[in-house]
Amino acid sequence: MRVTVLAGGHGGAKFLMGLRDRPDVEVSAVVNTADDLVVHGLTVCPDLDTVMYGLGGGLDGERGWGRIDESFRANEDLAAYGMPHTWFGLGDRDIATHLVRSQMLGAGYRLTDVTAALAERWRPGVTILPMSDDRVETHVVVADEEGRRAIHFQEWWVRHRAQIPATEFVQVGADAARPTPEVLAALAEADVVLVAPSNPVVSVGAILAVPGIREALTTTAAPVVGISPLIAGRAVRGMAEQCLAAVGVPCSAAGVAAHYGARRSEGLLDGWLVAPEDASVLPELTDLGIEAAAVPLLMSDPGDARRLADSALAVAQRVRG
Amino acid sequence: MRVTVLAGGHGGAKFLMGLRDRPDVEVSAVVNTADDLVVHGLTVCPDLDTVMYGLGGGLDGERGWGRIDESFRANEDLAAYGMPHTWFGLGDRDIATHLVRSQMLGAGYRLTDVTAALAERWRPGVTILPMSDDRVETHVVVADEEGRRAIHFQEWWVRHRAQIPATEFVQVGADAARPTPEVLAALAEADVVLVAPSNPVVSVGAILAVPGIREALTTTAAPVVGISPLIAGRAVRGMAEQCLAAVGVPCSAAGVAAHYGARRSEGLLDGWLVAPEDASVLPELTDLGIEAAAVPLLMSDPGDARRLADSALAVAQRVRG
Repeated sequence: MRVTVLAGGHGGAKFLMGLRDRPDVEVSAVVNTADDLVVHGLTVCPDLDTVMYGLGGGLDGERGWGRIDESFRANEDLAAYGMPHTWFGLGDRDIATHLVRSQMLGAGYRLTDVTAALAERWRPGVTILPMSDDRVETHVVVADEEGRRAIHFQEWWVRHRAQIPATEFVQVGADAARPTPEVLAALAEADVVLVAPSNPVVSVGAILAVPGIREALTTTAAPVVGISPLIAGRAVRGMAEQCLAAVGVPCSAAGVAAHYGARRSEGLLDGWLVAPEDASVLPELTDLGIEAAAVPLLMSDPGDARRLADSALAVAQRVRG
Repeated sequence: MRVTVLAGGHGGAKFLMGLRDRPDVEVSAVVNTADDLVVHGLTVCPDLDTVMYGLGGGLDGERGWGRIDESFRANEDLAAYGMPHTWFGLGDRDIATHLVRSQMLGAGYRLTDVTAALAERWRPGVTILPMSDDRVETHVVVADEEGRRAIHFQEWWVRHRAQIPATEFVQVGADAARPTPEVLAALAEADVVLVAPSNPVVSVGAILAVPGIREALTTTAAPVVGISPLIAGRAVRGMAEQCLAAVGVPCSAAGVAAHYGARRSEGLLDGWLVAPEDASVLPELTDLGIEAAAVPLLMSDPGDARRLADSALAVAQRVRG
C-alpha cells in the first residue's frame, strides 16, 4: 500500500515512525520546506532534517530538533565573532548535514536529490520529499513596540518563541514555486494520503501554498485522512494556537478540520481523527461529510504512533468503502 | 619601529609573539596563503589562522594548529556522510572562523579585509596581511606506486604526513597573483624586514612566488634579516627537510641562507641568525656578505621568542650600521 503523508517537523516525524513500522506500507513524506533558512551561508532545512534524523535514529527526542549527542561550539564561536543569527542554535554535528547540502545545492543539484543523498546515510525507511525544489519562506507579520514588520518564521519561532503577536503568515516565493514531479506522483499514485498532526498554518499550510499541491490532493483517487494536531483545543507541542489565532481559525479539532475543508465541498479531507477528549465534535464532522473517529492522538512511544497510523489507515479504508 | 615579518604558520606565530611583546615595535606580518584550501565549501587559511589564533590566545599550542578546547564532531559527521577530505581535521570552533570568512569572501570582500574583520575578535596586536588576495595553492608533485601526480599541499602534508616522496612544489596561481597594496606598503615602509623561521619552500617560498614581493624585498630601504628554520640540519617542527630535499637545497642553516641569497648578490638577505650548533657556518655567511650571528633559536617559551626577536633586531641594527 502506497501511503503519502504531508508532514512538518516533530509531529510529522513521530507519526511517520509509527506508519513506517507497518510491514505493508511504502511511505512517501511530502515535507514542509518553508521553515528553511540560509544562516551563516548554510542552507538549513529544519523539517526535512527533523524527519530524516527522527526516522534515522539521529534525532534528539527530548529537544525535538537537532542531533543526539550534540554540541554547539561553532555557534558559540560565531557569537564571539559578533555574527547575527546565533539565536538559531546550529549544532556541530548538524552543521555537517548543512555543509553537505549547501555544497550539493551550490553544485546545482535539486533539493529533492540532495535530500535523497543525505538519506542514504540515515536510511529513514521512507521516501522524504521536499514539497518543492524552489525556495519558499514563511514570513510572519508581527506588530509590537518596534512597529509592524515581517520577520522570517524562524526568527519568530526560535528567537522570539512565538511571543510577539503575529497577524499574518506569508509564504514568500510560494506563488512562483512548483511542486516537484516526485511530489505530484506521490500524491497521484498514492493508495492513501494522510495529513500528519503538524501545524496547520505554517507546516501543512505552507505545503498547500505551493500551487498545484492542493489540486493534486483534490484530484487524487486516494482517500485523504488527516489527524488533528490539537487535543482539547491545545497543540501537543509547538505553537499551533498562536498560528491559528493569527489566521482566524478556531483553535479546535473541528476548527482545523473545517479550515482544511471537506472534500465534498471542495476541501481536502475525506477523513479526520480527533482525540477522545474531542469526541463531541464527531457529529459535526459527519455533517460536513468527513469520516471521523476519536482515537488517542498522543504519541508518547512508538506503539502509540503505530496505533495512530493504524487508526488513520482504518478510516481511509472506511472512506474507500 | 615598523617591523614587517614574512611568516608561515606555527614558527611564524611563535616568533611574532616574541616580537609583539617588545614595546617599541609596530608589526605587520605578511602571511603565506598558499596552504589555503576550500574544503566542504569553506575557505580555510591554515597559516593566517595559526598566526591569528596564536597571537590572540586561541591556538592549541600542543597541537600547533587549530583551537584550544576544540572538538571534531562536524568532521566526524562529514565522514559518516562519506564526504571526501575528512582527513583534514576541521574543528567545530574553527568552523566558525571559516563560515565567517567564506561568507565575507562570497560577499565580495578581499581576503585582506576579511582577515582584518576576523582579527577584531582576536586582537593579535599585529597587522596580519595575507600575502595576496588572489588564490595561490601549493601543489606537490609526488611519485609513488600510484604513479606521478600533483596533489594539494594539504593532502601531502596532513593526509600523507609528507611521507610520499615529493619531487616538486608548484604554487598554482602564483603567476597571475598580485601582492596586495598593504603588503607592498608594509615592505616599502618598514624599518626592518624579518624572515621568520618558517618553511623556506612552502611558506616563505610561496610568499616569494607572488610576483612583486621579491622585488619589494630587494628594493626596500630596510635591512632584511632571516632566522634559520633549521638547527643542526633539522627542522624544529614541520617537514622542511623533505621540502628542501625536493627542491635540491642543502638541508642546513647555510644552505637555506644561500637559497634565499645575499642581498649584495641579488638575493634577499642582509642578515641571518643560526643556532649555536651551526656557529661554524658564520665565516661562510660573512663571505657571502651576510651579517650573521649564532643565537639560541628554540622558542620553548615566550621569553625565548622575545630574545630571538631581540637578536634579529640587533642584527638588523648592525646591518644598518
